[in-house]
Amino acid sequence: MKRRVDPFERVTIVGVGLIGGSLGMALRARGLAREVVGVMRAEARIPQARARGAIDRGTVDPAAGVEGADLVVLAVPPDQVVPMARQAIPHLRPGALMTDVASVKAEIVRSVDALIGPEGRVTFVGGHPMAGNEGQGIAAAEPGLFEGTAYLITPAPRTPRAGVTRLADLARAVGAAPIEMAPDEHDRAVALTSHLPYLVAAALMGAGGAAIPAAGPAFLGATRVASSPVALWGQICRLNRDQIRRALDVFRDELARLEAAIEDGGRLDALLEAARLARRRLGALPRESDTGR
Amino acid sequence: MKRRVDPFERVTIVGVGLIGGSLGMALRARGLAREVVGVMRAEARIPQARARGAIDRGTVDPAAGVEGADLVVLAVPPDQVVPMARQAIPHLRPGALMTDVASVKAEIVRSVDALIGPEGRVTFVGGHPMAGNEGQGIAAAEPGLFEGTAYLITPAPRTPRAGVTRLADLARAVGAAPIEMAPDEHDRAVALTSHLPYLVAAALMGAGGAAIPAAGPAFLGATRVASSPVALWGQICRLNRDQIRRALDVFRDELARLEAAIEDGGRLDALLEAARLARRRLGALPRESDTGR
Repeated sequence: MKRRVDPFERVTIVGVGLIGGSLGMALRARGLAREVVGVMRAEARIPQARARGAIDRGTVDPAAGVEGADLVVLAVPPDQVVPMARQAIPHLRPGALMTDVASVKAEIVRSVDALIGPEGRVTFVGGHPMAGNEGQGIAAAEPGLFEGTAYLITPAPRTPRAGVTRLADLARAVGAAPIEMAPDEHDRAVALTSHLPYLVAAALMGAGGAAIPAAGPAFLGATRVASSPVALWGQICRLNRDQIRRALDVFRDELARLEAAIEDGGRLDALLEAARLARRRLGALPRESDTGR
Repeated sequence: MKRRVDPFERVTIVGVGLIGGSLGMALRARGLAREVVGVMRAEARIPQARARGAIDRGTVDPAAGVEGADLVVLAVPPDQVVPMARQAIPHLRPGALMTDVASVKAEIVRSVDALIGPEGRVTFVGGHPMAGNEGQGIAAAEPGLFEGTAYLITPAPRTPRAGVTRLADLARAVGAAPIEMAPDEHDRAVALTSHLPYLVAAALMGAGGAAIPAAGPAFLGATRVASSPVALWGQICRLNRDQIRRALDVFRDELARLEAAIEDGGRLDALLEAARLARRRLGALPRESDTGR
């Protein structure tokens, strides 16, 4: 059921990189915001963000940038979300909706929820678009980045439902499928479906060594994500390390099960067939398209 | 250095599926063969192979099919290469070149070399195009399948060099980059760069479980190969199980190294950065394009 989204009056995007920039482009291209303001780290970056169509105007002052906005998107690295929220909250207009795009949620949602307090003058709804490419920064941004992807939404228990609905509508409006889950559940899920495949990709590169020139499609597909920027991934691995450790254990068990089954033909084929059917069901989702063939 | 290839008079492709069919299409589209003959399992399949442009004519009789051919490509599953070679050899014309496309080479090359004997009336050169998609059979064949891919060529010690050169020229002519390696070295390399990522993809599907709807680009890219047909992969896993076991050990060591480094920030970033640089070098090769973005 597709809901029509009332456009936002003013959306402020703090951090106009790959995700923030793509979101600005999508909002502007689809008329979902009357004005998009970018909060940038340096004056010198404003012209490029404007030229790419990601923002209408830019500023390096977070306080001035978020003023009057009805939606603020903190598209900064995970470890900067809470400090930036603390800085922004006093300048937000009452009833404003704030969200982030960080890949790790439990700690961020707990901290920002505490900053806002029980009688929330503003609403924070944690968000995590499962979108990306191997590029970095505004140069790699694209308005279609969210099309066909999952958009994870992670409210705290007392988060007002109206904010959750508003963010879900926004996700749909940029072409994504919103999926609501608790912050802890989110961190457990993405450890398995994002952080684990990233570490696996890095490990495959290490294991490949001198054999890499013989790489085929399976290797290229599995390792593509290893070429994305290290700083962010390093941060994610540390922030979510407990869940990642659990995910690695589950994965190693699966791999051991397959290895044992190689000695036993029938069982191997059954395991591989279960994986094949599960992957084919996944491939039927629209978001398959975002990673190429 | 690109060499011009003299067209073959008659190429016989035994097994006109994804690889055999794509090769037939590439040969015919590029004028590399005056006639392409397909040896099929069933009469009823000939019209489709012709309609797709993979063959000029088809037969279900291998002996008749290979007669008069100057190139015979055994594009059958790995466990059928040796039986099919045994059947074909007496009917080959003197000087004919025979090759296969199997993903596991040491045992096949050794066996076919023994069938031909020291005073080879014909030449066998093992080949392994590192190309494919998630489709199956002639329906998924495409003439551009080999473009930008690696084509592994695995001669035995006494294989005539002229045959190796001829196959390398053919690989280049269909857009692939030939890489020569000993059969044992091949099996070790592809265990790392093809069989390991396949098993990893299947293990990721198993580990993902209920979290799979939260899959992002890394998971989708890493698991795409898990949707390809199980029968062939099961066969490969069993044929190359010793090398696969070694590859799994190397991979597990790499993963353990990364896990240990997550506790130690600086070291983790250095490991991830090494993987990133290696992957970016790989991505610069032309064959990146064959798996999408």
